[in-house]
Amino acid sequence: MSVLVVGSIALDTIKTPIEEHADLLGGSASYASVAASFFAPVNLVGVVGDDFPKQHVELFASRRIDTAGLQIVPGKTFRWSGEYMWDLNIRETRSVELNVFENFSPALPESYRSTPIVLLANIAPALQHHVLDQVVQPRFVIADTMDLWINIAKPELISLLARVNMLILNDGEARQLTGETSLIRAARRIREMGPDIVAIKKGEHGCLLFGGSAFFSCPAYPLEDIHDPTGAGDTFAGGLAGYLSSEDGSEITFDRLRRAVVYGSVLASYNVEQFSLERLRTVTPGDISERYRLFQLMSSFEAL
Amino acid sequence: MSVLVVGSIALDTIKTPIEEHADLLGGSASYASVAASFFAPVNLVGVVGDDFPKQHVELFASRRIDTAGLQIVPGKTFRWSGEYMWDLNIRETRSVELNVFENFSPALPESYRSTPIVLLANIAPALQHHVLDQVVQPRFVIADTMDLWINIAKPELISLLARVNMLILNDGEARQLTGETSLIRAARRIREMGPDIVAIKKGEHGCLLFGGSAFFSCPAYPLEDIHDPTGAGDTFAGGLAGYLSSEDGSEITFDRLRRAVVYGSVLASYNVEQFSLERLRTVTPGDISERYRLFQLMSSFEAL
Repeated sequence: MSVLVVGSIALDTIKTPIEEHADLLGGSASYASVAASFFAPVNLVGVVGDDFPKQHVELFASRRIDTAGLQIVPGKTFRWSGEYMWDLNIRETRSVELNVFENFSPALPESYRSTPIVLLANIAPALQHHVLDQVVQPRFVIADTMDLWINIAKPELISLLARVNMLILNDGEARQLTGETSLIRAARRIREMGPDIVAIKKGEHGCLLFGGSAFFSCPAYPLEDIHDPTGAGDTFAGGLAGYLSSEDGSEITFDRLRRAVVYGSVLASYNVEQFSLERLRTVTPGDISERYRLFQLMSSFEAL
Repeated sequence: MSVLVVGSIALDTIKTPIEEHADLLGGSASYASVAASFFAPVNLVGVVGDDFPKQHVELFASRRIDTAGLQIVPGKTFRWSGEYMWDLNIRETRSVELNVFENFSPALPESYRSTPIVLLANIAPALQHHVLDQVVQPRFVIADTMDLWINIAKPELISLLARVNMLILNDGEARQLTGETSLIRAARRIREMGPDIVAIKKGEHGCLLFGGSAFFSCPAYPLEDIHDPTGAGDTFAGGLAGYLSSEDGSEITFDRLRRAVVYGSVLASYNVEQFSLERLRTVTPGDISERYRLFQLMSSFEAL
């Protein structure tokens, strides 16, 4: 079955202590839709300006990503510029130009409205609401978010939580949203606000998945060299949502969510190996299976 | 087979934001030997003053911990006092009185010298060397350490590394010892200094185990309420060393080390539930098996 992905599409300028690259394909929907496309057809919703390079649209089209919901409007594409410090966990936003994103109102083509799995990738909660208003009986809705929205749009985010099945956020954001230092308590608080499932990403420490009385701790892939952490979270969310869409009709059990988290982690671990979506372009299904097996090797031990 | 445990034996005064308790049984060898005793007979090496309460010696004796190597000398027992902040990861040492520990020279009873597994729990590297000088062809030597020794006794610690099979330390200490921010690189550096196996503890994020080309990421048990983190690392090391001693004669493979790390984590997760060794006193083999199974549940996902 298909997965609907809404989020930002951007042209990024990214500086690390080693390299700097300008006008790279970026944005939460770009990473998430390409990651999801490894597992399922994607219905992409987003907006770009008329300066958006054709080859990026062609990349989407080449990967069973439907661009009927991609608005191309007069003006400039959303631009983001950021700089990473030597500790690549520390990022500074250098500039943000909303451009055509400022007046973005996601409009779902008729053909998208019944998409069973919905990924509300990282954008303003108001836009995530607006997309949800247009879908018809989705089976499973996943929302990603970030610290910015907890700071400036908390009421909209809180009301969104009541409408989604799963929330993805990082450890700092979980603490910020709930005021709890314990991630175990933070996850419980978030689940009380709505989503039955919560995934808390911990960067180099992996990811925690909470649902019902079940708990899953997914390790992180032991990467020595990270070239560009941009989009790791979006890729994780996209891989996860794509995998959930890959098994037609079957119920979304906690065991299936475990596998989805591992696939999301596998794709995110590849993504940070190169700038922008360069690595995702060349990853093969064989690469994904190989690293999934490595995740298994590194987290398994003999049963009692 | 037996495990030799050498380390400190202390009377601790511990303050958390909630409680304060004085003159508790503490010290690396106390935690480590009681943890190890769940799996194997222990040969304890340490020193206490003539003020050391008899019931603590009785606790050791009641748990197949041989105290022939426990020196009871005139004077006061080593005392340590520490305070934990609201974030229990942050600890401040309030006072240290070495007392009889100042002139401690570990002397191994003849009956200890051929103990096959040796755990050099956290004490000064010079004392760890001194113990190693007295053992005869140990099969597997594990050393634990702490930031203090990296600060004030780095040369002795470095020379110790060439004599041990496994080093246990936490993430901050691994970075401090090697100057590497990546734990993957730090582990490789440490392995180049001697120990074939390195375990890097990450507190609430679990533990990483490195050996040969193998890698294991052990999750942390999702504890909501930690009452006293003191001794968690010592308990981990003791449980691990005890488990390695529990399978007579069989080779110490990486798979066995994986299980040992899980058992160490299980015991450490129990230990922090109460002050001092109070929780370790009441843990049963059934409790250990139950939590081992929970570790498995929380880290497993379907194979490809």
